[in-house]
Amino acid sequence: MVGVPARSGGWIEGDPTGDRRFVDVGPLELERGGSLPGVRVAYETWGDPGDPPVLVEHALTGDSHVVGPTGPGQPTPGWWDGLVGPGAPLDGTFVVCANVLGGCQGTTGPSSAAPDGRPWGSRFPEVTIADQVEVEVRLAAALGIERWSAVIGGSMGGMRALEWAVAHPDRVERLFFLASGAVATADQIGTQTTQQAAVVSDPRWAGGDYAAGAGPVAGLGIARRIAHLTYRSAFELETRFGHDVQDDQRFAVASYLEHHATKLAGRFDAGSYVVLTQAMNSWDVGRGRGGVEAALARVTARCLVAGIDSDRLYRIEEQQRVADALGVPLRVVPSPYGHDGFLVERDAVGALVRELLELPHQGRSLSSG
Amino acid sequence: MVGVPARSGGWIEGDPTGDRRFVDVGPLELERGGSLPGVRVAYETWGDPGDPPVLVEHALTGDSHVVGPTGPGQPTPGWWDGLVGPGAPLDGTFVVCANVLGGCQGTTGPSSAAPDGRPWGSRFPEVTIADQVEVEVRLAAALGIERWSAVIGGSMGGMRALEWAVAHPDRVERLFFLASGAVATADQIGTQTTQQAAVVSDPRWAGGDYAAGAGPVAGLGIARRIAHLTYRSAFELETRFGHDVQDDQRFAVASYLEHHATKLAGRFDAGSYVVLTQAMNSWDVGRGRGGVEAALARVTARCLVAGIDSDRLYRIEEQQRVADALGVPLRVVPSPYGHDGFLVERDAVGALVRELLELPHQGRSLSSG
Repeated sequence: MVGVPARSGGWIEGDPTGDRRFVDVGPLELERGGSLPGVRVAYETWGDPGDPPVLVEHALTGDSHVVGPTGPGQPTPGWWDGLVGPGAPLDGTFVVCANVLGGCQGTTGPSSAAPDGRPWGSRFPEVTIADQVEVEVRLAAALGIERWSAVIGGSMGGMRALEWAVAHPDRVERLFFLASGAVATADQIGTQTTQQAAVVSDPRWAGGDYAAGAGPVAGLGIARRIAHLTYRSAFELETRFGHDVQDDQRFAVASYLEHHATKLAGRFDAGSYVVLTQAMNSWDVGRGRGGVEAALARVTARCLVAGIDSDRLYRIEEQQRVADALGVPLRVVPSPYGHDGFLVERDAVGALVRELLELPHQGRSLSSG
Repeated sequence: MVGVPARSGGWIEGDPTGDRRFVDVGPLELERGGSLPGVRVAYETWGDPGDPPVLVEHALTGDSHVVGPTGPGQPTPGWWDGLVGPGAPLDGTFVVCANVLGGCQGTTGPSSAAPDGRPWGSRFPEVTIADQVEVEVRLAAALGIERWSAVIGGSMGGMRALEWAVAHPDRVERLFFLASGAVATADQIGTQTTQQAAVVSDPRWAGGDYAAGAGPVAGLGIARRIAHLTYRSAFELETRFGHDVQDDQRFAVASYLEHHATKLAGRFDAGSYVVLTQAMNSWDVGRGRGGVEAALARVTARCLVAGIDSDRLYRIEEQQRVADALGVPLRVVPSPYGHDGFLVERDAVGALVRELLELPHQGRSLSSG
């Protein structure tokens, strides 16, 4: 049985792997220097391999399980339920989703075994969004996919989608860039480095070399609380919880945040959390390409760029910049939910995905905007 | 020598006490139940006691030192420099500022000695904004002040100012309520309980009973990073730091946050941080008074209500609600700085203070608008 990484609380070495399949894509030289002697990729697919291929990119704590129930080896239900399936926006396509490089759901990450059999832990090198996309390029090759009919992603997934369209314009017919940015902002780096500080300040972090089941769940829980507040709007929290106090005398909003903290800490590897937020911190699609606008000028895909009006983490100005550079109109999804609107507003986002797939694939953009 | 609490990193028992004076205001029954057998208040004054008295209320990590330099027993310079002094907005008044109940700068708090000589620590009871104001009522009595010409405060200081005007309308001629709210929002409770979780997750917290100099500086530093991001606007952080990386390869914004974390953890008691954020969490001026609007109907002071347009912690809607209930127009201070604009925008805020003091003190409000 292929081992699913086992350092986080909820996992046991040798657990089943859900519906994942695995492919080894070989050694990898990394953008920041260093290398990995071998990378394994966990992925799932839906639909007929003869249909147009669509790459779906998951966000920070997502995995390859776009849709579907929990089950042995799959602790979480699909994170974008309703996107795939009969009658769904991606019906009639061959959908591929892979766990990201540095993750903890089957693709090589800090909780994976290094050549010496021990987890990589603190020895895991810094990876970037570009490195993550390079791994996906090799996955595409392994699957015999030369060109994606569409690459779609929100939040951290939007970064990989954009990197694909910039680094491999001839392989991306359509791009859906949702609730993300072209370069990490100071505010995002500020909150993400604070989250990292919370994880590594936990004595159980042990420099990144904690044992299976003995990781920094408290620190990871703090990180999740911090992050979760940035994922939701103040308005939505107020409407839902206000100043309410529960029977146990705790504030309802505090209880809600603790619930999310406990849930994440039980299923996600802290090392992956640090590695992936570091990749997000270093994200700058314009690095080595003469800046953001010069980089985006390379894109030949038909593009759809959308944001959530109440998003306080990836603010609408960031999607506006990308839309302007790509020469397409920005699509704004009205939602009270904040950043999480990219997952919650399934009807609105699904309609945009349908629209994307109906775009003819020649030419550069939806309009000259 | 009167002992300044000594549990935080930068303090030694027996340190000088700066310009503080002290008054014992006796035992105190608390709103949430429980009591304190004796409360000592640390305060400073400026100006001639014969001039109209003005009470200035400090915010979460402030103290009685409104203006003036650092020095022995005073680790921080004035937090509202320029407000007091010759030609300053409060020139010609007798200014009083007291360290808050539950604080760590001379007024009784968790780092103060309980009757058994040990710090209160985990035994320190929950206090509320109303309890803190009751202590200030007794300070006023000790100083022979029956009626304040003005009570002014921003952020947590605005809560005490508003509580004064509601609980003791006959003793407050003018109220300046700045960058604060009438009731804690879910967003504020969310971030403050997350900050508390960061403090108490630090093993050095030791249930609140850590020894002097051995407190949870790491956890308090995380709390400060979280808080500091809410005090600043995303726009200001972006303008100032962007994606900049320092010579040491750290992100400039991360270094900036760490600087503030280290500074606070070195001067502030973690127990006070928890007690005071708890008081802010429970803040609801309408509790036991039929709601916010009914409570605010008790105010007879001339009122000036102002907010910072870019404040993402105490959003302008909160000041609008207070202004509406008090029947005065909301004054909006334009600033890129976010919540911290209440301290940074000295000219604009100073002009509002001057305007407040020029209001005749009879009648209820600035206008019925």
